[in-house]
Amino acid sequence: MIFLQGRLGGAGAPGRAAAAVRLARVTSTSPSAMPALDLAADAPDLLQTLIDVPSESLQETVLADAVEAAISAYPHLDVVRDGNTVVARTHLGRAERVVIGGHLDTVPANGNIPSHRLTVDGEDRVYGLGACDMKGGVAVALRLAAELSAPTRDVTWIWYEAEEIDSRYNGLRRLADERPDLLAADFAVLMEPSNAVVEAGCQGTMRVDVRTTGVRAHSARSWMGDNAIHKAGEVLRRLEAYQPRQVEVDGLVYREGLSAVGVRGGVAGNVIPDECVVAVNYRFAPDRTMAEGEAHLREVFDGYDVTVVDAVDGALPGLAHPAAQDFLAAVGGVPSPKFGWTDVARFTALGIPAVNYGTGNPSLAHHKDEFAPVADLRTVEQGLRAWLTS
Amino acid sequence: MIFLQGRLGGAGAPGRAAAAVRLARVTSTSPSAMPALDLAADAPDLLQTLIDVPSESLQETVLADAVEAAISAYPHLDVVRDGNTVVARTHLGRAERVVIGGHLDTVPANGNIPSHRLTVDGEDRVYGLGACDMKGGVAVALRLAAELSAPTRDVTWIWYEAEEIDSRYNGLRRLADERPDLLAADFAVLMEPSNAVVEAGCQGTMRVDVRTTGVRAHSARSWMGDNAIHKAGEVLRRLEAYQPRQVEVDGLVYREGLSAVGVRGGVAGNVIPDECVVAVNYRFAPDRTMAEGEAHLREVFDGYDVTVVDAVDGALPGLAHPAAQDFLAAVGGVPSPKFGWTDVARFTALGIPAVNYGTGNPSLAHHKDEFAPVADLRTVEQGLRAWLTS
Repeated sequence: MIFLQGRLGGAGAPGRAAAAVRLARVTSTSPSAMPALDLAADAPDLLQTLIDVPSESLQETVLADAVEAAISAYPHLDVVRDGNTVVARTHLGRAERVVIGGHLDTVPANGNIPSHRLTVDGEDRVYGLGACDMKGGVAVALRLAAELSAPTRDVTWIWYEAEEIDSRYNGLRRLADERPDLLAADFAVLMEPSNAVVEAGCQGTMRVDVRTTGVRAHSARSWMGDNAIHKAGEVLRRLEAYQPRQVEVDGLVYREGLSAVGVRGGVAGNVIPDECVVAVNYRFAPDRTMAEGEAHLREVFDGYDVTVVDAVDGALPGLAHPAAQDFLAAVGGVPSPKFGWTDVARFTALGIPAVNYGTGNPSLAHHKDEFAPVADLRTVEQGLRAWLTS
Repeated sequence: MIFLQGRLGGAGAPGRAAAAVRLARVTSTSPSAMPALDLAADAPDLLQTLIDVPSESLQETVLADAVEAAISAYPHLDVVRDGNTVVARTHLGRAERVVIGGHLDTVPANGNIPSHRLTVDGEDRVYGLGACDMKGGVAVALRLAAELSAPTRDVTWIWYEAEEIDSRYNGLRRLADERPDLLAADFAVLMEPSNAVVEAGCQGTMRVDVRTTGVRAHSARSWMGDNAIHKAGEVLRRLEAYQPRQVEVDGLVYREGLSAVGVRGGVAGNVIPDECVVAVNYRFAPDRTMAEGEAHLREVFDGYDVTVVDAVDGALPGLAHPAAQDFLAAVGGVPSPKFGWTDVARFTALGIPAVNYGTGNPSLAHHKDEFAPVADLRTVEQGLRAWLTS
């Protein structure tokens, strides 16, 4: 595990040595430089405040401080701070405990801070960095955490750091590895953007390098060499001809994809290249394991050198689970499959059924013009409130 | 024109302002740090001395100083220094003037300095950086320039800088642009490696980028995008299927080539890429002009976006010219076509028939284990001596 200098020991955060994780109940208020969050504010207003506190991955300290300070004001919550991840729990002795989680970080800014609110085509929207992915969900969760002092299910609220970058930094992954007790639950909701409908499970993802080799020569005497880039043509042809599976699981149709996401080759402008690498990303339905996915790719690229670069399993939707059924009944709507990999898979790996349910269109994630429809904020807030009070 | 800091005003070199070229007759001796060249030494010994003075492109000052100092000792030569290019001319009023040229620079060292002499498979060889490309030719030319005080043809000997890198630095190109009077001649011999046989003319070369475009999308929803790398498969397929021409000119068979020398594409590991560029190098026979070559490539890659990155015309062999016939008669052997582009094309562009004639196998150029057979040094030296004294 690697901790970067900049995000340790921020104002108001407990000190932490690089190698050891120390968890501490934090009750002190934070310094005046920290923006105050009004958790009773209307959701779109709170969302705008959250957007206006920059929190690019590994730079979440100011926002985590603000979240921790605001939520610590509510005595029904037991608050734990771990790095820039904040966990707040009710302890009401309910029969069921649920996790509701969302990440605090965003991709780098792209001229989309500060936020603004705009009506487009009759739709009331909040624009700005993270509006969609996923400060809209964070705003709703913060409001409900503050408001619901006696939910019908015990709730573990989690606002975590570093979801948008390499998973070694991911705050939820760290909790799963080091404090799985904090994640113990009967069901989990991850508030990734999902158009305010339940998106269940998630597909796995695997990256492989498909490599061709040849023999270098001067390009003025090309017949003396063996061109590795020319050979990659067949790899690309197979990709172009590939027919991805569509797989039904629990009534949801997952849709796979097999795509070149990079290609590189070439030594110099006058040299026949001896190597070419096609970087391929395989998105596979949750009925297939990583091992099965790898075996499939080795068939597709039979005759070529295939190296797995990284891979994660997907998550089965688990909609048949009673806790999932209760959730679906409370929030309503028709569930969809989640195509992209999300942290729900971490809960699945811990044996906890989990779904995605959040505000905004996932296709807008990481776009300069991302936004959250105010109607989504209302829908998701009402859905979760109905579930936690029924 | 760009002059790099490091190669200006070296010890013994005339000062030169960055923007103005000043040519000066240099008669002063150089400082003691400079290696002395014994132009009466046996050719393989002189070659070893030349190899042991590093002269990577743009770092030729020490070697150019040594060449200038050694050649300036011979009163039958009129020496002109331009940057790190040295020109030495006889002025005997002969009916014919010929240029004999070679470059002083090498590609970067690759553990192949100092030189060594070794007999392999019964062949006596000098190994080391530039042994083949082309200090073998430089050694022979230096010896003959010193020895032949009264050649039957006036000779312009040229040892020039920066042939191995971008042509804006090339010393011969600079002379052609700024002092074409120094290149005036009836015939030119460029001592690039040619296995000690005459290689005539040279092929042209053109680099084009063939670009495919598409639409970005998240790779978890690949069907929302349009993969530009997949489309490049057809570009590579055409390259693989391409049948290059073989063209006879003046009895020599030139052999073309069309090769991908680079490919690049990709935005991120989870993004469907919207652009892919295949860098293609076309080597074309000297019966075809750049414009004809470009038109041909636009046919080959019909339907794709083709951009010409750079191009140079080849050179017709010109063996029918009387000066060429005299040269061939004197040096003997059966001429071959030159496949690679060389600076002979600069002479052709000035209306001067020119050939390649040098020591070593051109296929070994830029190889770590390049060498010059001692027999080549003897053959080429005898061939040129016969021509210049007949």
